Amino acid sequence: MTKAADRLLDAIEEKKNPSVVGLDPRIGLIPEHIKEEAAREGDMPFETVHNALVKFNHAIIDAVKDVVPAVKPQMAFYEQYGSWGVKAMESTISYARARGLVVIEDAKRNDIGSTAKAYADGHLGTVETADKTSVTAMGADFITVNPYLGTDGIKPFLDACKEHHRGIFVLTKTSNPSSGEIQDVLTTDGIPVYELVASLVNGWGEELMGTYGYSSVGAVVGATYPREAERLRELMPNTIFLVPGYGAQGGTAEDVMPCFDPQGRGAVVNSSRGIIFAYQREAYRHEYGPEGFAEAARAAASNMRDDLLAALEKSGKLPKGW
Amino acid sequence: MTKAADRLLDAIEEKKNPSVVGLDPRIGLIPEHIKEEAAREGDMPFETVHNALVKFNHAIIDAVKDVVPAVKPQMAFYEQYGSWGVKAMESTISYARARGLVVIEDAKRNDIGSTAKAYADGHLGTVETADKTSVTAMGADFITVNPYLGTDGIKPFLDACKEHHRGIFVLTKTSNPSSGEIQDVLTTDGIPVYELVASLVNGWGEELMGTYGYSSVGAVVGATYPREAERLRELMPNTIFLVPGYGAQGGTAEDVMPCFDPQGRGAVVNSSRGIIFAYQREAYRHEYGPEGFAEAARAAASNMRDDLLAALEKSGKLPKGW
Repeated sequence: MTKAADRLLDAIEEKKNPSVVGLDPRIGLIPEHIKEEAAREGDMPFETVHNALVKFNHAIIDAVKDVVPAVKPQMAFYEQYGSWGVKAMESTISYARARGLVVIEDAKRNDIGSTAKAYADGHLGTVETADKTSVTAMGADFITVNPYLGTDGIKPFLDACKEHHRGIFVLTKTSNPSSGEIQDVLTTDGIPVYELVASLVNGWGEELMGTYGYSSVGAVVGATYPREAERLRELMPNTIFLVPGYGAQGGTAEDVMPCFDPQGRGAVVNSSRGIIFAYQREAYRHEYGPEGFAEAARAAASNMRDDLLAALEKSGKLPKGW
Repeated sequence: MTKAADRLLDAIEEKKNPSVVGLDPRIGLIPEHIKEEAAREGDMPFETVHNALVKFNHAIIDAVKDVVPAVKPQMAFYEQYGSWGVKAMESTISYARARGLVVIEDAKRNDIGSTAKAYADGHLGTVETADKTSVTAMGADFITVNPYLGTDGIKPFLDACKEHHRGIFVLTKTSNPSSGEIQDVLTTDGIPVYELVASLVNGWGEELMGTYGYSSVGAVVGATYPREAERLRELMPNTIFLVPGYGAQGGTAEDVMPCFDPQGRGAVVNSSRGIIFAYQREAYRHEYGPEGFAEAARAAASNMRDDLLAALEKSGKLPKGW
């Protein structure tokens, strides 16, 4: 199996598209006809939610699978429904991977020692069952992690990445307004905390370098902070950036350009609501009703790709042959 | 319903015991007879694991319920088995709460905006199902959270805490060797990052103050750093400390004394492996075999309480009437 960084970068080359669709389903926004079907097949409230999430996600995945290289299910939107929600996550991950999509599980997990190992094994590797056989639980390609606990919290994930050819994205500079409260604080070394995290990420990634010169240890860098992203791109030449904040959070295609290297590589830009619930947006509502939600998502994903490619071209970074 | 901080401090008073049992089950350490029973009742590997975790935890809860005020299930040890594991977590939480124990879910969750709200609603509040009814998913009293994203990541948890009388513990200074890589870094304000987090925690807790003068917004402060704990106790006079690192990680009863206020209140000390797998420890193995694992846990929990009370007495902090 190729390294996770290479699988992601290969998929980006193949689709000629450095973007990822965030699978953040909200039951209130899922079309009524899906919920009605789901209710006919489930008895309990959470079972019905599970059915609706699965039907919705599978349709979205089928619609976007030849447009985008990857999907990013956000664990919170599944886990909030407890075990039934996590079951929908499992189904989503395996359905997407079986259709050739790279799966980035956005879970921002963090803990230490044997506890971090349990997270790493469960999400990226295999776990031992009662009769001592090894079984895959979640089976994602990548998971997002939080660095606040230091190397003790990351090492078990690195071990799982090495053994199972998986990857992580480490929260570095996040897209939200208050991210600076801790991340921007200046240290006595003259650098902000997020630059300190960047240097840790560089170190963590050294042993997971792929053939493109990028490591399977990536960084989360928000689209809403282009100046910081530019600096981080310099500081982390071997790190793939997972870029949230495009679209609904206000980041534009131009804002994310500093996340790419001069050859237009090394970044993958996420959009969630703007794609999966495109059928409710002014620009898509009239052409695609609720029945056409998946086609609307496909159109929105194609438009996002075109938007990014136009910005890459304008900034002189469009990869050769795209 | 009383505030979460008051429920926890009431329970500590009632049991005269400021400790919590960490429910961190490892399938490899669960006694064989439990696993055999579990296998007879389950067809699939993860179903058997679920059955074993539930049987084991229920027995431990029954054995310690009149000794300790609270339990702390660590989500990683459930989630690693996917939806079946999370189902075991749900069962553990509701079984413990029905027996009067306060439940602190150790999940270290973190995200922003509507995503953080999904975590908060799912773990502490209620979520809306397909037919728009509100249902409780996990139903914990407290959850641990990570502060790296700043106030945006905490606010949705505070809202759930207010509405549903729940609480959070914010990672501040963790017990692991590498916690200093980010947490101890000196800022240009002359304080380390963990003190900056302490001041954020103080602010987040202001609107959730209980009758003991402690807030439902607590802090995680490791037993392995007594000097830092002493300073944090001064800086956070209204914050309950959840203290990991006692026992297996090397922290002693003496080490955790700085986490308590002069009246011996305001801290709750965790031990996991040392209690739930006491039946394998030298000190308990001979009296309690695998069949007596629950009684061994009870004995170990009582010994931990006595150890803490002796240290409180020695440091002149034993609460009156204990």
